[in-house]
Amino acid sequence: MTERITVWSVAGVPEIVQGDDLVAIIGDAIANDVEAGDIVVVSSKIVSKAEGRLVAADDREQAITDETVRVVATRPYPGGVTRIVENRLGIVQAAAGVDSSNVPDGQVLLLPVDPDASARSIAAGLGARFGVALGVVITDTLGRAWRVGQTDAAIGAAAVRVIDDLRGSSDARGRVLDVTMPAVADEIAAAADLVKGKAAARPVAVVRGLDAFVTDLDEPGARTLVRSGESDMFRLGSDEAYDEGFRDGFESASTEDRTPGSDADD
Amino acid sequence: MTERITVWSVAGVPEIVQGDDLVAIIGDAIANDVEAGDIVVVSSKIVSKAEGRLVAADDREQAITDETVRVVATRPYPGGVTRIVENRLGIVQAAAGVDSSNVPDGQVLLLPVDPDASARSIAAGLGARFGVALGVVITDTLGRAWRVGQTDAAIGAAAVRVIDDLRGSSDARGRVLDVTMPAVADEIAAAADLVKGKAAARPVAVVRGLDAFVTDLDEPGARTLVRSGESDMFRLGSDEAYDEGFRDGFESASTEDRTPGSDADD
Repeated sequence: MTERITVWSVAGVPEIVQGDDLVAIIGDAIANDVEAGDIVVVSSKIVSKAEGRLVAADDREQAITDETVRVVATRPYPGGVTRIVENRLGIVQAAAGVDSSNVPDGQVLLLPVDPDASARSIAAGLGARFGVALGVVITDTLGRAWRVGQTDAAIGAAAVRVIDDLRGSSDARGRVLDVTMPAVADEIAAAADLVKGKAAARPVAVVRGLDAFVTDLDEPGARTLVRSGESDMFRLGSDEAYDEGFRDGFESASTEDRTPGSDADD
Repeated sequence: MTERITVWSVAGVPEIVQGDDLVAIIGDAIANDVEAGDIVVVSSKIVSKAEGRLVAADDREQAITDETVRVVATRPYPGGVTRIVENRLGIVQAAAGVDSSNVPDGQVLLLPVDPDASARSIAAGLGARFGVALGVVITDTLGRAWRVGQTDAAIGAAAVRVIDDLRGSSDARGRVLDVTMPAVADEIAAAADLVKGKAAARPVAVVRGLDAFVTDLDEPGARTLVRSGESDMFRLGSDEAYDEGFRDGFESASTEDRTPGSDADD
């Protein structure tokens, strides 16, 4: 049972550009205070920058389209349309995670190619350098259904048990906790956001005290936190689902009227 | 800029029963280490218990109905139906927050009557006892659209700035952060869950280092984190919205066929 954690952001991470060695840079930034079982929390922004995932801002809408697997909902705002989409990582978020804050003028930033792989690479590199097991969580800022504002969540992870699956375990009274699965990696991301801040250049934080959740590198990553489209009760926005139903209902009634008793519904 | 936080759960909170004085009990539990600016994070479960919000388990389904303002989505499971609803607090969650873990056999627990008011009362009481300003966040465990597992979130708050509204402020490059509103109280709740745990009897945690978010008691509570039904893109589950659209579309086509050119749609 973890009873105390400490979370701090580290100074000394410079502006990251394509090709930078994140293991070396993050390693230098945390080097003066590293212990086995620490979890290093890294904003996806610097992973993307190291990977050179910048595109011209003029191409932003096309970039969002390219990153999109499935449009979940759209809503117009003055001057544009917000697109909530499922991206190629399975993550549902606004604008497919394409980001224009803290990036060079005239450019926007795509999410890392494979955040779980990036996390594994960083965890392996830091582990080798310091000779201790360290977890890595890569974060992005996500909006939520039904709640105002955003929280940071885990979009990549390595050497961290991302879900504390309590199904089948017992509560303090011995009763089975049948559906309880705390999304630990998302809670770690949220805790780290409290010290990283959005406006400051502090993209790396360390969480100490969660040794119990630090694993070997074979543990599944943050991808397991993603609920896939078909099984999700909110796979489509309410307006979009209503419109789809309306079209189908309208067509169904029309078809029925034209060809009574027919099953045809083209 | 907050650079370091410490989060710990406190021992010594006994099993809570109706009428217990939470200010005295929580105060005793945290007394050996309290500083101005600490935020006390309390599981809603013990607030509910102190308020006597237990009902017979046989009445669980009716209790959920009574707590429900609006059904958002339903999904059958073996032996029942999961109801995702907006409850009377505006919170969208499964079973209206009616809880059967860590409660006496044969009973289930409803959410506190007014968690923001409970938080204010606890914050005022603790502040008076210790002579320093303390924040209070009351938490519950919420599922999320699109993501597996649950995280703790703030359902009540007092003396805490629940949203860090950065709209209009600038990033490290001087560019305006136009939609960034970190849900700080939810991130605090998530951080505290990492040390409270679900299976253990540790319903109270303290977060130290977020003095910058501790305010006077007049600050709006966690209710401001709730996005109200009509404005939410996910106010209705995809299947439910589709079905509603289908009915309306079918009826619209039928009406059109019966009375060409008519606007009637009853």
